[in-house]
Amino acid sequence: MSLTGLISQDTIIALATSPGVNGAIAVIRLSGSKAIELVNEVFKGKDLAKQDSHTVHFGTLRDQEIIIDEVLITLFKGPNSYTKENVVEISTHNSKFIIERVINLLIKKGARAARAGEFTLRAFINGGMDLSQAEAVADLIASNSAASHQIAMQQMRGGFSNQLKKLREDLVNFASLIELELDFSEEDVEFANREQLKTLIQNILSVINKLVQSFEQGNVLKNGVPVVIAGKPNVGKSTLLNALLNEERAIVSEIAGTTRDTIEDEININGITFRFIDTAGIRQTQDVVEAIGVERTREKMKKARLIIYLFDPINDHIAAVQQQITELQSLNIPFVTIVNKSDLIDADQKKEFGVLNPIYISAKHQIGIEELKEELLRQVNLTNVNTDDIMVTNIRHVEALQNTQIALEKVLFGIDNPVTSDFLALDIRQALHHLGEITGTVTTDDLLENIFSKFCIGK
Amino acid sequence: MSLTGLISQDTIIALATSPGVNGAIAVIRLSGSKAIELVNEVFKGKDLAKQDSHTVHFGTLRDQEIIIDEVLITLFKGPNSYTKENVVEISTHNSKFIIERVINLLIKKGARAARAGEFTLRAFINGGMDLSQAEAVADLIASNSAASHQIAMQQMRGGFSNQLKKLREDLVNFASLIELELDFSEEDVEFANREQLKTLIQNILSVINKLVQSFEQGNVLKNGVPVVIAGKPNVGKSTLLNALLNEERAIVSEIAGTTRDTIEDEININGITFRFIDTAGIRQTQDVVEAIGVERTREKMKKARLIIYLFDPINDHIAAVQQQITELQSLNIPFVTIVNKSDLIDADQKKEFGVLNPIYISAKHQIGIEELKEELLRQVNLTNVNTDDIMVTNIRHVEALQNTQIALEKVLFGIDNPVTSDFLALDIRQALHHLGEITGTVTTDDLLENIFSKFCIGK
Repeated sequence: MSLTGLISQDTIIALATSPGVNGAIAVIRLSGSKAIELVNEVFKGKDLAKQDSHTVHFGTLRDQEIIIDEVLITLFKGPNSYTKENVVEISTHNSKFIIERVINLLIKKGARAARAGEFTLRAFINGGMDLSQAEAVADLIASNSAASHQIAMQQMRGGFSNQLKKLREDLVNFASLIELELDFSEEDVEFANREQLKTLIQNILSVINKLVQSFEQGNVLKNGVPVVIAGKPNVGKSTLLNALLNEERAIVSEIAGTTRDTIEDEININGITFRFIDTAGIRQTQDVVEAIGVERTREKMKKARLIIYLFDPINDHIAAVQQQITELQSLNIPFVTIVNKSDLIDADQKKEFGVLNPIYISAKHQIGIEELKEELLRQVNLTNVNTDDIMVTNIRHVEALQNTQIALEKVLFGIDNPVTSDFLALDIRQALHHLGEITGTVTTDDLLENIFSKFCIGK
Repeated sequence: MSLTGLISQDTIIALATSPGVNGAIAVIRLSGSKAIELVNEVFKGKDLAKQDSHTVHFGTLRDQEIIIDEVLITLFKGPNSYTKENVVEISTHNSKFIIERVINLLIKKGARAARAGEFTLRAFINGGMDLSQAEAVADLIASNSAASHQIAMQQMRGGFSNQLKKLREDLVNFASLIELELDFSEEDVEFANREQLKTLIQNILSVINKLVQSFEQGNVLKNGVPVVIAGKPNVGKSTLLNALLNEERAIVSEIAGTTRDTIEDEININGITFRFIDTAGIRQTQDVVEAIGVERTREKMKKARLIIYLFDPINDHIAAVQQQITELQSLNIPFVTIVNKSDLIDADQKKEFGVLNPIYISAKHQIGIEELKEELLRQVNLTNVNTDDIMVTNIRHVEALQNTQIALEKVLFGIDNPVTSDFLALDIRQALHHLGEITGTVTTDDLLENIFSKFCIGK
């Protein structure tokens, strides 16, 4: 059954909040033409059918005479709702027993269990948001840093969509003019000024190129900066990682009730996530550098966007250190050199290592950690990225933009060469098609299925 | 700092829904005189100060110029709220990053992170519910069967409280009359009719005795019926347990989005929970029966409220089976005898085992499971319990009721013996004190701390 086929008169229901035992309340959501009517059948309190949109009502939910729960019912009348349909939210006590019973009861009354992403799918189908905005909802929920959050928020609020819409409008205009020429093809008229068209396409291409280029940064901001900490065994890699992580944990644990299932090796510096890649085990003090000759480790390190090389000024010899640094720098990845245990060396020794222009820290005593963080930020060069700029973070979007580029390049070629109007029109339509894929102007059931099935149920 | 001391002008904040990644939305709750004012400072949309209670408003939450989220704000103006104070619920996208940021922002604006149970504590302090009702909120959230749910629901809705209130009122009346006698002690008057008082106390005692007695059943309904499956190794104990559990799982998994962290060995039959006790490993096919001589296992089995004895008609010998059954029955616990693998025996063999009056099943082929379930229900004799009756499920309440009993027995003794009015008055006051402990008319910070600290944060 196709996803869009599901958008019938069905009223869907799902738990909208996280399942789990540590909450006080849970919210069950219904959407569809009969949402209010169905809940009204099992609600004892005010007559919900007679209440205004955006109002909340206290009462009891009952299965025949048995009280299932004291609840708060919130009404949203379409089109003033997330899905543009009638939506009812039932706030219950957070008991699995109660949640199951309420959902079962309303399914018995005629609701249907919602599929993954079906509420947002309805919002899309009913014109509440376009496809890239719907995708941003999922990104927003998954966002875990200020940067990824801001990009998703901007996309959800339509920043990206509006930019695409503008590009499309200009193109559609020219497409129409050229198609008009086809109707008069025997008369050899030219409604669409070729020079103007060329300028337009060039402008559009420059915007699209910028968007495609933004993907690399956008992707890093969304998914984090992959970092490798290299260094000989026992140089303090694990201690350094803990020093970076612990501060983070302390901040997080201040907020009661929001305990974070921290991904072990991820830290957040000024809103940017740094992900530490486990090359042959960073947490175990194995020798990443000695293994670098091995191609597999080398391949892994190539995925890093930043390498931190840590050495021990007491036990490591400067010649060996220099050789390793040279080898690692051959990977052409931004590189930070760090002297650990710097509290144990004197000025002369510092001078000796000075040629490497390192940062002096003590992971154990938390010395120099702030300086290191600043250096990490400086190296990835993301601090001056303006996250207010439109940034593409979705591989599907990049692919559609690249396809648009190809079609537009063909149009440009066609203008400068003896290509007939019908081919020109075809290429412009092709470009429009790919732009439309992003916002969902052009879509297929498979595409929707693919996008929304990744959502959680209840969204 | 005492808990009641916290009920100041503080506005508290906490996540009210379960933390976790599988939800679409999360609800953050604030309560206190400044709840609306604080949220209004960071909300862009309508002016919340000018909106009615029980209304919902869409807008954005902002930290300076940065949009943290598009949210729905629900307003509850005291005293028409759970805590009787101003309450604001903020419905956000379910992102930990967003939740933390919203809570942090509002703490920066002047809210305070709520302590465990503090919302419900405020509801109690502000007269929204009494103590036994507040305790029932926690029981309701923890309820996992129709029976435990119904008992908690009735207690939360004040069934138990009202019964206690009535008992107290009658007693208070007599206490006043007797204390009046003290004022006129030189005149030897008797305002309180001793025969009437005696009848009253006897009536109250009969109600309290019934309540105390209800605890055994109430506790079983709340916490489940502890069951032991006994039998030789490889007789099919584990298969039987799975047969019972699987059906349950199938039912549960029908409801999408409510996946249950099932306690492995717990099933629900007609609203009653059966908990399988692990005596030397029920799940591993160890020989529970052979170990029964061991005192420790015996002690464990004594905690069961029901023993299922399972045997294999092919490999077990009837004489040995009969001996084991005799031994187990000496524990004086309701007992069910089951022949497993009954699909493999003929009529003659069935006849042979008939003397044991067993239930014939095949755990592997799911034969006889329904019949077994009916027998389990029959044995625990809870099906005809009317969960509409007031039932005590809380050990604290039972202890208070037992103390009330003791005081009232003293009053009865005093009436029939030459005891002066002042002692009579003292004993009645003592009874009133203990009754008051249940509903919180009489309370201490320690008691409140003890009760509410077990709640989750956000409740």
